[in-house]
Amino acid sequence: MTDLAQALFAPRAVALVGASGDAKKNTARPQRFLARHGYAGAVLPINPTRAEVQGAKAYKSVADAPPPVDHAFIMIPEVEQALEDCGRRGVAVASIFSDGFADVGPEGAARQARLVARARELGVRLLGPNSMGVIDIPGRLALTVNAVLEMDALPAGGASIVSQSGTMLGTVLSRGAARGFGFAKLVSVGNEADLGVGELVELLAADADTRVILLFLETVRDAERLAAAARRAHAAGKPVVAYKLGRSALGERLARSHTGALAGSDAALDAYFRDCGILRVDMLETLIEIAPMVAGRAPPRRGAARGAPRVAVVTTTGGGAASVVDRLGLSGIETVAPGRDAPIIDLTMAGTSAQYAATLASLIDSPECDAVLAVVGSSAMFHPQHAVEPILGAPRTAKPLAAFLTPHAEQSLALLARADVAAFRTPEACADAFRAYFEWRAPRSIPVERIDLRIKEKKFNEKSSLDLFASLGIETAASQVARAPDFAHSLPYPVAAKILSAEIAHKTEAGGVVLGIGNEVEFRDKVKKLNSSEILIQAMHDGLAEAIVGYRDDPMVGPLALVGAGGVMAEIYKDVVLALAPVSVEEAEDMIARVKGFAVLRGFRGLPRGDLRALARTLSALSRLALLPGRPVAEAEINPVIVKRTGAVAVDGLVLTKA
Amino acid sequence: MTDLAQALFAPRAVALVGASGDAKKNTARPQRFLARHGYAGAVLPINPTRAEVQGAKAYKSVADAPPPVDHAFIMIPEVEQALEDCGRRGVAVASIFSDGFADVGPEGAARQARLVARARELGVRLLGPNSMGVIDIPGRLALTVNAVLEMDALPAGGASIVSQSGTMLGTVLSRGAARGFGFAKLVSVGNEADLGVGELVELLAADADTRVILLFLETVRDAERLAAAARRAHAAGKPVVAYKLGRSALGERLARSHTGALAGSDAALDAYFRDCGILRVDMLETLIEIAPMVAGRAPPRRGAARGAPRVAVVTTTGGGAASVVDRLGLSGIETVAPGRDAPIIDLTMAGTSAQYAATLASLIDSPECDAVLAVVGSSAMFHPQHAVEPILGAPRTAKPLAAFLTPHAEQSLALLARADVAAFRTPEACADAFRAYFEWRAPRSIPVERIDLRIKEKKFNEKSSLDLFASLGIETAASQVARAPDFAHSLPYPVAAKILSAEIAHKTEAGGVVLGIGNEVEFRDKVKKLNSSEILIQAMHDGLAEAIVGYRDDPMVGPLALVGAGGVMAEIYKDVVLALAPVSVEEAEDMIARVKGFAVLRGFRGLPRGDLRALARTLSALSRLALLPGRPVAEAEINPVIVKRTGAVAVDGLVLTKA
Repeated sequence: MTDLAQALFAPRAVALVGASGDAKKNTARPQRFLARHGYAGAVLPINPTRAEVQGAKAYKSVADAPPPVDHAFIMIPEVEQALEDCGRRGVAVASIFSDGFADVGPEGAARQARLVARARELGVRLLGPNSMGVIDIPGRLALTVNAVLEMDALPAGGASIVSQSGTMLGTVLSRGAARGFGFAKLVSVGNEADLGVGELVELLAADADTRVILLFLETVRDAERLAAAARRAHAAGKPVVAYKLGRSALGERLARSHTGALAGSDAALDAYFRDCGILRVDMLETLIEIAPMVAGRAPPRRGAARGAPRVAVVTTTGGGAASVVDRLGLSGIETVAPGRDAPIIDLTMAGTSAQYAATLASLIDSPECDAVLAVVGSSAMFHPQHAVEPILGAPRTAKPLAAFLTPHAEQSLALLARADVAAFRTPEACADAFRAYFEWRAPRSIPVERIDLRIKEKKFNEKSSLDLFASLGIETAASQVARAPDFAHSLPYPVAAKILSAEIAHKTEAGGVVLGIGNEVEFRDKVKKLNSSEILIQAMHDGLAEAIVGYRDDPMVGPLALVGAGGVMAEIYKDVVLALAPVSVEEAEDMIARVKGFAVLRGFRGLPRGDLRALARTLSALSRLALLPGRPVAEAEINPVIVKRTGAVAVDGLVLTKA
Repeated sequence: MTDLAQALFAPRAVALVGASGDAKKNTARPQRFLARHGYAGAVLPINPTRAEVQGAKAYKSVADAPPPVDHAFIMIPEVEQALEDCGRRGVAVASIFSDGFADVGPEGAARQARLVARARELGVRLLGPNSMGVIDIPGRLALTVNAVLEMDALPAGGASIVSQSGTMLGTVLSRGAARGFGFAKLVSVGNEADLGVGELVELLAADADTRVILLFLETVRDAERLAAAARRAHAAGKPVVAYKLGRSALGERLARSHTGALAGSDAALDAYFRDCGILRVDMLETLIEIAPMVAGRAPPRRGAARGAPRVAVVTTTGGGAASVVDRLGLSGIETVAPGRDAPIIDLTMAGTSAQYAATLASLIDSPECDAVLAVVGSSAMFHPQHAVEPILGAPRTAKPLAAFLTPHAEQSLALLARADVAAFRTPEACADAFRAYFEWRAPRSIPVERIDLRIKEKKFNEKSSLDLFASLGIETAASQVARAPDFAHSLPYPVAAKILSAEIAHKTEAGGVVLGIGNEVEFRDKVKKLNSSEILIQAMHDGLAEAIVGYRDDPMVGPLALVGAGGVMAEIYKDVVLALAPVSVEEAEDMIARVKGFAVLRGFRGLPRGDLRALARTLSALSRLALLPGRPVAEAEINPVIVKRTGAVAVDGLVLTKA
């Protein structure tokens, strides 16, 4: 254990700055909770007006407390003074419950910046501000103000959680405890002024008690460090699972105002999580329920060629099984019953517990399914021996086994939790977990080498944008700039003519584009009407369909590649796929395969097939903007790429630099 | 109470056919459960080999039991004999647990048909076969084999449920009991050989104990009767809420094989529920959690003009509130904080319970929100006085008030249940309930008069289809049939030419369509290549976009109108809207407003606006096929309708009759 981890999770002594003797106050809680849950270290209440708090000797300041003090929990508004005292006493970590920092606007953010700078000088690491604290169940540390810790018995388990919401510590602890599901470490990161989610994931990746790392996120403040930590966790065989708010535009707005964080586009984060090997769950309860399903397991080894993932379902209730199967289908997951005619194996009335056990064993062994789901009906409440116990006794393999219990059956859930079998309370969370599991991939290795291409322009127009694309190896439409007064060019007709300017963003809407000019007479006429001194003349290209290919250096997650169907329909249906850039041609093909609208290029309704490999080459090439020295490009877009039976041609695009 | 309702829910005596004295057997359960839950009527075990079962005198057959026997529960394979005995004893209702009927294929279905026919002769109404039985909590009738009834105390409440899955009775009862949420009547309908969901909803609409009717459905077998029953329930002020399986294609397949029922298209059922005034929930737990939110309330009065629905959120946990708000946003529901700058009202640390109560009262009173959500964090577990009690004391109005509790807090949930406040365990079910509530509409009044238009054709080709559309008042493209050898016609060029045939379904893919023929010479050439003796010649129409308009007499729910964006993209994205036919022009406009792809006709990105009113007239006119005497049309489709700046023209279509 590092010194930091020891001070954070297993301090020899903790100072409670602002500890109260009034049991009704929040500030009385940490001392009470530490006692209740059996913390073995020294508890040092800091209170300048009392000699004793809750039966323990109190000290005027942290500086007055007897050394060693590894960890201080600061609950008073005068955080700066408390930090100075921590520095004097050699405190390694100060967790700050107090708010009034980045959570309250620009002035608070400035106060927070000053606090962090001073903490660095003093050698004190900070958790928070606005943190609910730290809990280590096996270590019996309950250093928190969360009211849920009034509970007596907290089961220990292999799941640890890092949360940007302090309330969620209580939420997952209490919900887990009710069903025998235990935790290892729980951390509320608050404003992440110093210790962030990424660094905590690093600590947990190295933590002996932690088998799976859960994240409750409202934003991502340290994408690079979290990505590296996720890789480290993956290498250590510890899956990382995230529940992240901000899926809707409204949610994004709320995430911003709630924590003072800059939340980015949700699609970008989706790509980021996927490429970092982080599973993303859609439902809150899935975050804890999925833990035993992935703990100790690797991402599923499945090629796109292998078709839809297959879950075998054995059940004692047809309706209960159907409620999960129905949702699995919505995620493109198939239900199979190896060796049987029906879609599920229904042992409702027929099955003895021996039959149930034998069926489970054969499914776990069968190469014809990728996971097994056991659904148990009313018997789960009072007769666990019937169908729950056979699940407890089922063989453990690399293939996930999960249970969904239809009645209220906390004892059966606890039996399953103790046996480390993933058990679900709702069909929706169950299906969500299978979806997340099957979408889980090992972290992608993103190239970081630089390519030998320097750009000098600060501003790009369409011509120079296309030239840059061509220099990346992208096939672009033949283009020439024609200038007043004669607008001479040497391209064969038909051609397209466009106003050449970096200023007009939507040229088509602005009437700045003329397509299909058939001859010189028409050309003279149209060009005059464009009323511009510089015109871009381009060869016309016909193809099967249009695509949009993009690049964006996202302020939150860094370089991204994007591909989608072209035209307004794709925009209306938001049918685009993102990945961290750069992507290889193979990775680009995988992205393209996930764009629904490209069905028209994959033989839908007998339509001719387009050259999606060529489109993938274009996407991969554009994504290499991430490798330019200094990453000068903020955004680049080719819209459209015309996809043909053979080949794909960039006909229009724009580059925006960061300058 | 009708005689049927009395015999079903409040029988003076029940006969248990096949009652066992072996406590381990399913067939021992009903007798035990009736005793445990305090049934006051006579319990008559029927067992030919015993004189006494579980301490009660047993009879050889129902015919031997002392009258009156209102209700028999049949658990033996010899159902037919038991039915004869019921007939002899004048039993009003026989509930049949035994399976082996429509649930096992065509032979079983034939057996079931014979059983029903005989029951009619005998004057015995049937519940099932394959039914788990009937439960009436206030009436203390637990006539079921469901294992969950081993529970001691079942809270009574105003929600009744009709379920096509017997297991679900135990699921909702046990989950409800754990949190103080009670039920009135619960019925497992099994195969619905006689008593179906529709008739049961009728009974519950008239039931004094029932305030809200919940449906767990795998299919709909009696759409007309259920629609009428839903209207009756609406008139009685009792909302009907459905959770229906079969949303995915796979789920549909399972629903079919599971109950021997013919499951129809999910989109058709969605339209059906909506137009019948039935709320449809997406998540299983929402089915019970939503009950207090709608009981005693009417559908929200909201015009499309009023914009997005608005929910005001007050919370003691930012993260917990955000988890709901995020999902509300995904359903297009806005979060508002009347009189405040932030999107939610966060009283996490600041709020006293008096402040919480005052805030709630002001929100419930505010005209600036349509519903109120109170989110409670960790305090809900041990300190209900802090934020839960203010919710209990909040004023009750027509505006829905709901609570989401983030920790495991069954006592607080029970307090809320007793106060009849909708309380949610998960953010997802909470958001699902708000979505269902805001989508809730009063039952539409569907015209049933007949129009004076008779069709003689059994088969329609494109010309006769267009003629039928024109006779319904739809603007169609000028069309003429041209015949070999000279293919004379009098339409001005440009024209389109199409092979005229009722046999070739996808003419475009088959090369049977030529568009934009500019003159006579081109016409001769193209027509020769079509290689057909009859050609349809049509005026060419240019427009802003294409639409598809359809009509279908669905085998499950009856006549439906459909509208969607034209072209393959709309097909790929499944962007169509359905409603029960016929629809008025105003209703058609409402449907069109829900088609995403028509954004291109609504001014998206500055594109010119199309004449959606004209498209609505076309849709409304086609939907009137539902009013043809004898409803001879099985399907009709106009594809495409060309939508212009002014007007909309049907250029292609087909009619299929039932003959």
